[in-house]
Amino acid sequence: MQMEGTVKCSANCVPLSPISFLERSAIVYRDRLSIVHGNVKFTWGETRQRCLRLASALTLLGISRRDVVAALAPNVPAMYELHFGVPMAGAVLCALNTRHDSAMVSVLLKHSEAKIIFVDYQLLDVAKGALNILSKASAKLPHLILISDSESQLSSNKNNRSLAPKNLEYESFLATGEPNFEIVWPNDEWDAIALNYTSGTTSSPKGVIYSHRGAYLNSLAAVLLAEMASMPVYLWTLPMFHCNGWCLTWALAAQGGTNICLRNITAEGIFDSIVQHQVNHMAGAPTVLNMIINAPQSVQKPLPRTINVMTGGAPPPPQVLLKMKELNFNVIHGYGLTETYGPATVCAWKPEWNFLSPDEQAKIQARQGVNHLGIEKVDVKDPESMKSVPSDAKTMGEVMIRGNTVMNGYLKDVKATEDAFRGGWFRSGDLAVKHPDGYIELKGRSKDTIISGGENISTIEVESVIFSHPDVLEAAVVGRPDDHWGETPCAFVKLKDGCNASANEIIKHCRDRLPHYMAPKAVIFEDLPKTSTGKTQKFVLRQRAKAMGSVSKASKL
Amino acid sequence: MQMEGTVKCSANCVPLSPISFLERSAIVYRDRLSIVHGNVKFTWGETRQRCLRLASALTLLGISRRDVVAALAPNVPAMYELHFGVPMAGAVLCALNTRHDSAMVSVLLKHSEAKIIFVDYQLLDVAKGALNILSKASAKLPHLILISDSESQLSSNKNNRSLAPKNLEYESFLATGEPNFEIVWPNDEWDAIALNYTSGTTSSPKGVIYSHRGAYLNSLAAVLLAEMASMPVYLWTLPMFHCNGWCLTWALAAQGGTNICLRNITAEGIFDSIVQHQVNHMAGAPTVLNMIINAPQSVQKPLPRTINVMTGGAPPPPQVLLKMKELNFNVIHGYGLTETYGPATVCAWKPEWNFLSPDEQAKIQARQGVNHLGIEKVDVKDPESMKSVPSDAKTMGEVMIRGNTVMNGYLKDVKATEDAFRGGWFRSGDLAVKHPDGYIELKGRSKDTIISGGENISTIEVESVIFSHPDVLEAAVVGRPDDHWGETPCAFVKLKDGCNASANEIIKHCRDRLPHYMAPKAVIFEDLPKTSTGKTQKFVLRQRAKAMGSVSKASKL
Repeated sequence: MQMEGTVKCSANCVPLSPISFLERSAIVYRDRLSIVHGNVKFTWGETRQRCLRLASALTLLGISRRDVVAALAPNVPAMYELHFGVPMAGAVLCALNTRHDSAMVSVLLKHSEAKIIFVDYQLLDVAKGALNILSKASAKLPHLILISDSESQLSSNKNNRSLAPKNLEYESFLATGEPNFEIVWPNDEWDAIALNYTSGTTSSPKGVIYSHRGAYLNSLAAVLLAEMASMPVYLWTLPMFHCNGWCLTWALAAQGGTNICLRNITAEGIFDSIVQHQVNHMAGAPTVLNMIINAPQSVQKPLPRTINVMTGGAPPPPQVLLKMKELNFNVIHGYGLTETYGPATVCAWKPEWNFLSPDEQAKIQARQGVNHLGIEKVDVKDPESMKSVPSDAKTMGEVMIRGNTVMNGYLKDVKATEDAFRGGWFRSGDLAVKHPDGYIELKGRSKDTIISGGENISTIEVESVIFSHPDVLEAAVVGRPDDHWGETPCAFVKLKDGCNASANEIIKHCRDRLPHYMAPKAVIFEDLPKTSTGKTQKFVLRQRAKAMGSVSKASKL
Repeated sequence: MQMEGTVKCSANCVPLSPISFLERSAIVYRDRLSIVHGNVKFTWGETRQRCLRLASALTLLGISRRDVVAALAPNVPAMYELHFGVPMAGAVLCALNTRHDSAMVSVLLKHSEAKIIFVDYQLLDVAKGALNILSKASAKLPHLILISDSESQLSSNKNNRSLAPKNLEYESFLATGEPNFEIVWPNDEWDAIALNYTSGTTSSPKGVIYSHRGAYLNSLAAVLLAEMASMPVYLWTLPMFHCNGWCLTWALAAQGGTNICLRNITAEGIFDSIVQHQVNHMAGAPTVLNMIINAPQSVQKPLPRTINVMTGGAPPPPQVLLKMKELNFNVIHGYGLTETYGPATVCAWKPEWNFLSPDEQAKIQARQGVNHLGIEKVDVKDPESMKSVPSDAKTMGEVMIRGNTVMNGYLKDVKATEDAFRGGWFRSGDLAVKHPDGYIELKGRSKDTIISGGENISTIEVESVIFSHPDVLEAAVVGRPDDHWGETPCAFVKLKDGCNASANEIIKHCRDRLPHYMAPKAVIFEDLPKTSTGKTQKFVLRQRAKAMGSVSKASKL
């Protein structure tokens, strides 16, 4: 039958937007702490007021719908406020990676056409350098608004103030805004809320567009994925610029949580904050987990309660998971990309797994798992035929994703967007297998796979074996050109302090545990190049391996 | 800037639908119990298979998009499966109130144009009576499919089978369907998923249309409102036909929970189920809470853990809340209407309230609170000017609601829909005040307010005082015509077993605690007429009070 009687209006149809979370929290959690940063503390009532002032000030400066507002700052309160203040003005937040240099920042400012850039005082030189480059190219310069150090007295320091003209220091800028500002709600929930540039592990950064709808849905999915009850206390060890902190920036407002900000991520800062603020949730790349488990005994503190830690970016090795558990951290392993607003899958834990041996548990937990609630479907497919691979834990295919928390597209790059969505799925570029229980497990990125003598070698598998050597802190494997085999595995390894395993020991360790063709032919000891989100920059390592030259003599496998 | 690069396609834009929850749970929670009913047990993998068969069988019977499929059944597994199987066929579920008589069922079947009705064997007479009425009126008859008693041997009982022709018994019907059925996904998330008739406390039932979008969003909101972690064990003490169990039917699939079905709701059944299945969540009208706290000692069992109980429909009196807490039930008080998919608000609890006296806590907890996450805004407004009332806890206004979990409209009644949405808000018809902290508190329905000598009397306030009398089990107050005062309060009271307070005692109890004009002039002792969802049918009481005739002598206030 026709459903006559239906009327669509403002009573029953409202564009989904994370802004609604803040509106609600300002009532329900009005007097509860929203943000803590050193001695700086705000309540949800205050945070809403400050975000409204920010939106108002932006509007007075000429910002309107769809304008891009950039930010270059660590996890300080202003960075959190920008996540609401910018969208409340109808604008699009572009949070930049704090490890970029001036050249890269200038490229991204130009590409995004940002009209304003908020810059933390510690990153002012980078930003000024970027503006300088733009200026030389006669490009239009964004306004620069300085975020002073709110923790110390620096904000009233003359030197600091003189860095930016009056009204262009964050707090003074806020003061120019009205707290009764009328929010510029999205006309359509599909409207952009954020622009996030990919971290560039495999190519130059692309501008990923997030919608209000996707941000809203991914926030709720993140809350459920992290088993986050209302009023969590969340420690910021994940950069907010990274997929908007996997949308946890907005999710914390949904649940009326307290954001514990950390300017610099150190093991000491982590343990101190946990104990002082009774933290019960955090998230971070595997480097954060490494930092925690390798912290000296004097820094590690006994934890009063279990802390849920979301992680992703690279599968945490079993040793790391075991150690984290001992320290009372419950690691939740997810997987995703900038294009999926952060995590798209979670290795959802089953109670029956608690009865497995610790080794088996860690092995299971290192899998990428199943789609979270915001994602419609994650599958492993043959990229040509688009057929799903069998759930045999063996057949590799490409991870493909569909759902409302997949990006709108790449800014100004319809071609790349269409390529990414070819076949009606988002093509991740990551290779995986599907287990009989439906959980997926990553085996490397398409470009990471080594083909040696016609055999595919999963670099993750080799890395995992290298990692099981007690001396190894970090490991990455790439292909090195080989005249005979085409490619052979080459390992880059960082040893733990005071350890001194040799290249031959590492190779033997691998040959004892893997088919011989999979064991690395060369081992180079050095610090691994990383993106600011803790992902190893394999393209850098591949260049190095290439620079080492071809292995010209057929080596024995 | 224009966000060029955006592409909307199946990779990044999927209609929100609760069907997705089941698709996911069939992977993540494949072997975990989905439904338990006596000796009948299903896993999520099985539930998906059965729902697909159901959808397939419906399609083979001719059901297609937008067709209405009715159900008349208590909380049995088939009723749960219909919540997914019907939408998976593209159809609309119309779950009917099990307390309706044949006449009302016939009216609703005709109005909804249901093509099929699934009927539990215990309600077969009612359904047959309804079809008989339709048949006499030469109306088109829906197919009747019988749900046998799956708990006992009745399903193979000849008498039972003979009630419906072959293939029209639920299990046989399921067997006609294919488990590989291709789901008929909604074309648009705004498409109808369910049709729920209002319970008719103030008027004749209206057909409320729910959308896939609203059902999806309200399910997630309900999960968060109830602080429901993954894999909850949920006891069905709320009828599934009531707003689709406040959308918890679908929410349980989202969280991979276990549905404990109870055909008949008794105190014994509740306590037994809780202990046997380790229940940690339930929901129900205040009558369910009454049943629990008034259960004999021999039935009450010590609870191994705190159980979260969502309640709504009428504000739970302080005494009930206190007693529930003692028994280890954590009551979450919400408020909503059929038009808002069940709860729209929740009295979100603040930790600082734990330090108040038990009485103060109970008083706070009886408030209706703030909008939940799925609702955009709840306000108390002057229905004429649409201005918000001040947050002074005194000024009454009408509760008005906006958000994505407000109905599409009333089926075949554009006029009523437009009236309900006049001014861009859903007008609840309920009167409330707003407290300084932003929480709302109900003071009665528009039609319930008694105007006595020009003064508005909140019936809820009077009821709450009557309830504080130790002998009172239930109380309802309505206006009785009065020649002098216009109306005066008339109380209908049910006393606890073995108690015998007199009318004068009740009146004195009220006059000691309320302005005298608010105290009832008459007290009638009797069972209160209820809707099947536990709401007192005030219109019935108003008729009785009216039938008592006017108070003709001016009584002293």
